[in-house]
Amino acid sequence: MGEVFVAGVSMLKFGRYKDRDVTDLGGEACLKALDDAGLTMRDVQYMAAGCLLQANAMVGQRILHEIGQTGIPVVNVANACATGSTAFREAYYAVASGEIDVALAVGVEQMGKAGLLGGGGGSGVRTEGVVGSGLMPAVFGQAGMEHMRKFGTTPEQFAKVAVKNHGHAVRNPLSQYQVETPLEQVMAARMVAYPNTLLMCCPSGDGAAAAVVVSAKKARELGVTVRVRASVLTSDPWTERDLTQPDVNTLTRNAATIAWERAGLGPDDVDLVELHDCFATAELLHYENLGLCKDGEAGRMIDEGETTHGGRVPVNVSGGLLSKGHPLGATGVANIYEIVQHLRGRAGERQVPNAKVGLAHVIGLGSACTINVLST
Amino acid sequence: MGEVFVAGVSMLKFGRYKDRDVTDLGGEACLKALDDAGLTMRDVQYMAAGCLLQANAMVGQRILHEIGQTGIPVVNVANACATGSTAFREAYYAVASGEIDVALAVGVEQMGKAGLLGGGGGSGVRTEGVVGSGLMPAVFGQAGMEHMRKFGTTPEQFAKVAVKNHGHAVRNPLSQYQVETPLEQVMAARMVAYPNTLLMCCPSGDGAAAAVVVSAKKARELGVTVRVRASVLTSDPWTERDLTQPDVNTLTRNAATIAWERAGLGPDDVDLVELHDCFATAELLHYENLGLCKDGEAGRMIDEGETTHGGRVPVNVSGGLLSKGHPLGATGVANIYEIVQHLRGRAGERQVPNAKVGLAHVIGLGSACTINVLST
Repeated sequence: MGEVFVAGVSMLKFGRYKDRDVTDLGGEACLKALDDAGLTMRDVQYMAAGCLLQANAMVGQRILHEIGQTGIPVVNVANACATGSTAFREAYYAVASGEIDVALAVGVEQMGKAGLLGGGGGSGVRTEGVVGSGLMPAVFGQAGMEHMRKFGTTPEQFAKVAVKNHGHAVRNPLSQYQVETPLEQVMAARMVAYPNTLLMCCPSGDGAAAAVVVSAKKARELGVTVRVRASVLTSDPWTERDLTQPDVNTLTRNAATIAWERAGLGPDDVDLVELHDCFATAELLHYENLGLCKDGEAGRMIDEGETTHGGRVPVNVSGGLLSKGHPLGATGVANIYEIVQHLRGRAGERQVPNAKVGLAHVIGLGSACTINVLST
Repeated sequence: MGEVFVAGVSMLKFGRYKDRDVTDLGGEACLKALDDAGLTMRDVQYMAAGCLLQANAMVGQRILHEIGQTGIPVVNVANACATGSTAFREAYYAVASGEIDVALAVGVEQMGKAGLLGGGGGSGVRTEGVVGSGLMPAVFGQAGMEHMRKFGTTPEQFAKVAVKNHGHAVRNPLSQYQVETPLEQVMAARMVAYPNTLLMCCPSGDGAAAAVVVSAKKARELGVTVRVRASVLTSDPWTERDLTQPDVNTLTRNAATIAWERAGLGPDDVDLVELHDCFATAELLHYENLGLCKDGEAGRMIDEGETTHGGRVPVNVSGGLLSKGHPLGATGVANIYEIVQHLRGRAGERQVPNAKVGLAHVIGLGSACTINVLST
C-alpha cells in the first residue's frame, strides 16, 4: 500500500453565504487548496466531492466545470456528517492504489434551513418537525445523561466544553463565531435537550474545505511532509445496545482501535485532536472513546484543562463544531485542514507548539465514523 | 497497484417492486453475490453503495443493517447513471490499494415516478415537466440526428438497435421485458424525440445488482479467474463543442482510450460489450466511441448484424437498457454482472461462446463515464 501525503489544504470561513452556491464555494476551496500545494487543476487526476444535502446533484462535476474542466474522474460521496471525510478517504484510496499521484477532496454544504436541531442530518428521519424535537439533540442529550448517571459527570462539566471551544474560536478567523461564552452564559442559555443548552449545540451554516492528497513520489517533488498515517472508516456494528453504548460510542471506539493500530501510534503520541463536538456532551464521550483518558475520567479532564489550548492534549483548538460551525459536507475536510495547519506550523495565533501528530475525528449517525491520523 | 478480481455477482430481475424498498432489494442482491462468491458478510471488509435518487439516505448502511451489520466501512456514492459503476470502481480502488481483500459493490434504485423520459436523471434539470419534453431524450435525439446528417445514418438503422436488444432480452430471464419487437413495430411506436420512438427509449423500473471484488490473494484462495483489466472513470472535458461532439461522445472516447491502454487490449480483443443504450441512437454512437468500428460505420455494423448475438462483437446480449431496464443506480453493476456471467460460461441460453474479454460501459450526463474491461 502506497504512502499518502497531504500537500495542500483550504477552508472558507464557515457562516452564511446567501448569494453563493455550493459550486462557487466548493470551487473556491479547491483553488485555494491547490494554491496551497503549489499545484493547478492540470495536476489533479482524481476528485472526490462530498455534499450531503445535494448528494445526487453532481456537485463535484459542477465544481470542476467552474475551476478547470479537465475530464478527470469525479466521485460524489455521501455519508451523513462524515461526508467530507469520506471524500478525503476515497481520495486516499485512489492515491494508495498507486494509480493516482494527485487527488483532490472537497467538502461543501449550504444548509439553508436545515440543521441538526431540527432535521435529522443525514438520518432521513423526518418526524422531528412534527414532534417539535430533534433526533440528534435527543441522541446526544441521552448519551450525556447516561454518562452522568454512570460516572457522576455534571452538567457544568459538559458546559465547560462549550466554554473551551467558544474560547478557542476567538483565535480562529475562519470560525463561524468568535465570541467567548462564560460558563454562566452557557448554563443559562435555553435548554435544547438536557444537559445541552443552545450554546452547547453546533450552529447551522454554510462552508467548504478542500485537501490535496498526493503520493510519496509527488510529496518528495513538492517537499511535503504531512503524511496520512491512518485513514479509517467504520459503520455501526451490531451490539446488544443499552444506553451506555449507543452507536456514537461504539462506532468511534472501533475506529480508534483500528486507527491506532494502522498508524503504529497511541493516544499518548497525539499533540492535538479535532473531534466531532456536534453537542458538548459528545466531546466528553469521545475523550474516552478515542482513548485520551480512561472511562469515567472525561469530566476530570475538562475540569483540569487538559484539553484546553496549552493543556496536555488540546482538543478542538479550531473552535470545534460548536463554534467553528458544522456545514455537514464540509466538516470532515475542515477538521483535516486544522490538523494539517498545525503540523506545518501555520495555525497562527492558535498554533499548538511543536505539533507532530494530529487526529481528526468525525461521526455521522446512520452510521459512519472516520478517523484520520496525520503526522509530520 | 494490486490486481483486482470479481469473485461473485448478482442481479435481481429489473421491473416493479412496489411492496419492497431499496434496502430490501439491495440486501438481496448483496447476499446473492456473496453466495455466488462462496463468501459471507463476515468476509467483507469494505462496501460501496450506489443509489442515485436516495443518495444521502445512507442506503449502504441500511442494507448492511439488514444483512449483517459488521461495522465495516461503507461509502455511498452518486454519479448520475454511472452511480452503480462508480460504486464498483471505488471498491476496485479499495482492493487495489492493498488494504482490503474483499469488497462489496451494490447498486440499487427504485424509480417511483422518475424516468429518463420525464426528469433529467441526475442532471438536476427540472424544467422538462413544464415544457413537456425531456432533457435526456432531447440530447440523444439530437446526437442521433447529427449522426444522420454527417454519415447518412437512417432512422431504420437506429430502430434496428431496439429490434436487436429487445430480441436479445428474450433469452434473459432477468430482463424487465422479454418481448421481441419487429422493425415495423419499433418504427410505428409513438415518437418521443426524433429519431427515437418509445420502443427506442429505455423503460423506467426498479432493480438491484451486486459484485464481490477481491484481491489476487483472495482470488487464488477462491479459484476466481475473472480479472478487472481496467476500471476507468472520466468526466466531461472542456471542448469546443458542436453538435457532432456533445459530451456523450467525448466522455466515452476519452474513457475508452484510457481503458484500452490500461488493459493492454484493443477493440479487436473484445468478445462482448454491454454499453449504455439508454436510447437506441446512443448505441450506434458508442460503437464508434468505443472503437468497435470506424467513424460513420455504425449504421453498416448494425445492418450486417455484427453486434447481434452470434455476430463479430455482440453488444447488449442482456437486452441492454432498452429491454433489460435501467434502474439508475443498479445499471452499472448489472452491466458488470452480465460480462462476468459470460466470462464464466454461466450466461445460459444467451452465452457468448468462449468469451474471454468483455467490456461494460456506462454514461451519466452531468457527467460521468465508466468503462470496465474484464477478462478471464
